[in-house]
Amino acid sequence: MKNSVFDSFKPKESKFFPLLRQMTDVIAQVSDLIIECVQVTNHTDAVGKYKQIKDLERKGDEIQNAVFEELNNSFVTPFDREDIDALSGRLDDVVDLINSCAKRIMLYSPKSIPESAISLALLVKSAAECLAKIVAKLDVIKKNPGIVKEELSQLEAIENKADDVYEHFLIDLFENEKDAIEVIKLKDILHELERATDAAESVGKVVKMIIIKYS
Amino acid sequence: MKNSVFDSFKPKESKFFPLLRQMTDVIAQVSDLIIECVQVTNHTDAVGKYKQIKDLERKGDEIQNAVFEELNNSFVTPFDREDIDALSGRLDDVVDLINSCAKRIMLYSPKSIPESAISLALLVKSAAECLAKIVAKLDVIKKNPGIVKEELSQLEAIENKADDVYEHFLIDLFENEKDAIEVIKLKDILHELERATDAAESVGKVVKMIIIKYS
Amino acid sequence: MKNSVFDSFKPKESKFFPLLRQMTDVIAQVSDLIIECVQVTNHTDAVGKYKQIKDLERKGDEIQNAVFEELNNSFVTPFDREDIDALSGRLDDVVDLINSCAKRIMLYSPKSIPESAISLALLVKSAAECLAKIVAKLDVIKKNPGIVKEELSQLEAIENKADDVYEHFLIDLFENEKDAIEVIKLKDILHELERATDAAESVGKVVKMIIIKYS
Repeated sequence: MKNSVFDSFKPKESKFFPLLRQMTDVIAQVSDLIIECVQVTNHTDAVGKYKQIKDLERKGDEIQNAVFEELNNSFVTPFDREDIDALSGRLDDVVDLINSCAKRIMLYSPKSIPESAISLALLVKSAAECLAKIVAKLDVIKKNPGIVKEELSQLEAIENKADDVYEHFLIDLFENEKDAIEVIKLKDILHELERATDAAESVGKVVKMIIIKYS
Repeated sequence: MKNSVFDSFKPKESKFFPLLRQMTDVIAQVSDLIIECVQVTNHTDAVGKYKQIKDLERKGDEIQNAVFEELNNSFVTPFDREDIDALSGRLDDVVDLINSCAKRIMLYSPKSIPESAISLALLVKSAAECLAKIVAKLDVIKKNPGIVKEELSQLEAIENKADDVYEHFLIDLFENEKDAIEVIKLKDILHELERATDAAESVGKVVKMIIIKYS
Repeated sequence: MKNSVFDSFKPKESKFFPLLRQMTDVIAQVSDLIIECVQVTNHTDAVGKYKQIKDLERKGDEIQNAVFEELNNSFVTPFDREDIDALSGRLDDVVDLINSCAKRIMLYSPKSIPESAISLALLVKSAAECLAKIVAKLDVIKKNPGIVKEELSQLEAIENKADDVYEHFLIDLFENEKDAIEVIKLKDILHELERATDAAESVGKVVKMIIIKYS
């Protein structure tokens, strides 16, 4: 299952970093789509957006499997195998949660989706942009661990803002929505977006741990 | 706390693999019981099934503690200590979630349990069978990592099917159940079964990671 | 980013153990406050308690960041870097869940909070006391792993009791509360406390893993 002797002398970052960048491309695309998805006004459009997101979610799974195959077949890896696996796993969690939000919108057909969902989706998009920047710099992170400091702080700030938005949404929901089933639906839908920003912050934590290990 | 010098020269897989097989036996038994549990028609039967499952859940905890003691007392281990601990932990999660489903049926006394719960319980049982096959082959996984490939794919396929079943259940629930409290109960009960298939897939991910480390 | 040569010869536990003890101090304080918080009788008091808890939650985050900085700057560490990071992360989870419970009380303004919430808060406080004892002994855990055995068992016992209390609360809730929105609120609020005892037990699991690795 190993590469040939010659393969193993290729520059060691040859496959992993491009695969992880493909993953952040997928995250960028689903985070654009979820902004549109929370603004659909009918079930047909919700189904359409969900299908586009679902296709990308499958692509995310394929990339994660490719990372796994590559870990299996590579003699040398730029970071510990567990860390690369954790990185691709946590990145894929972001995609899964965005997909889960879109699925819930499609499944639940809520009467309407509150403005806060757009705010949360925009925060998810900001997080996606941070993740892309971080992953683009992974190849130099060992030599220059400070290079992602700014983006790591931003991921935390975004997660805090998403918490605030979700809180205000909940206050409003419990004050104004008297239909308990509608409460269940909306609480669930927006929660997945808030969790997507948590997941993005978790990617940041894996990167922090990698920095700790190699700096 | 170490074994004696002689103990440490026993074949190193002596205790861990049998303990993990005991864990998959427990999973097999609770997954049989949960199929019956989701079909009970009165509270007394629900209590009875829950008690049987709860006893097995405690047995799972004891096995997990035995694995921990063994990790403490063994000089050599077949895989890294963290990986054996993760394996027994993730296997125990499957038991815990099945137990949690049974507990909720007993606690909530829903008016009726939908057919989808049976489908999900059958998928949990299929996952349990995969886990038993995988654990039975752990002793040869280092030499032949491909030997569990089929079962690892099956765990993913089962998890995807469980997602589909749960989705269709949710669509149906929100369309037809107008009692919000009943919605809360059933959504919660079936969610634990869907999560049990996620947990089974997580065992697969630990095994994949072990394969990556040793292949 | 490393310490100077002289710094690296300081006794290696110099910073980590005090930081982790600061974290258990924070946990002790928030667990005292949450006992008061579940007994507030008006929204103003709920907001007041939440603000106090939120300040401590931020302090917990700062301590966690200090642990991270210290991991980055230390040449030698008393345990593996991942383990120290996991310890501070799981301890911070306990604070986050207590904070989340207080936040929900403030956000949801439930009509009344059941007695079981006090029982759960008292269990959280017992868990906090165990964690403080365990962390106070971390510096001798390698030489004497048995020294925290009692506290580790207590954490498990507390988590089991919290499960029981939460179960009885749920039975009572579904039998007596006919307002579905009130069901959603109370189930959510008490769940965070039950999860806080799970999180405390998870700290125990990290300590167990550290014992396994070094004993």
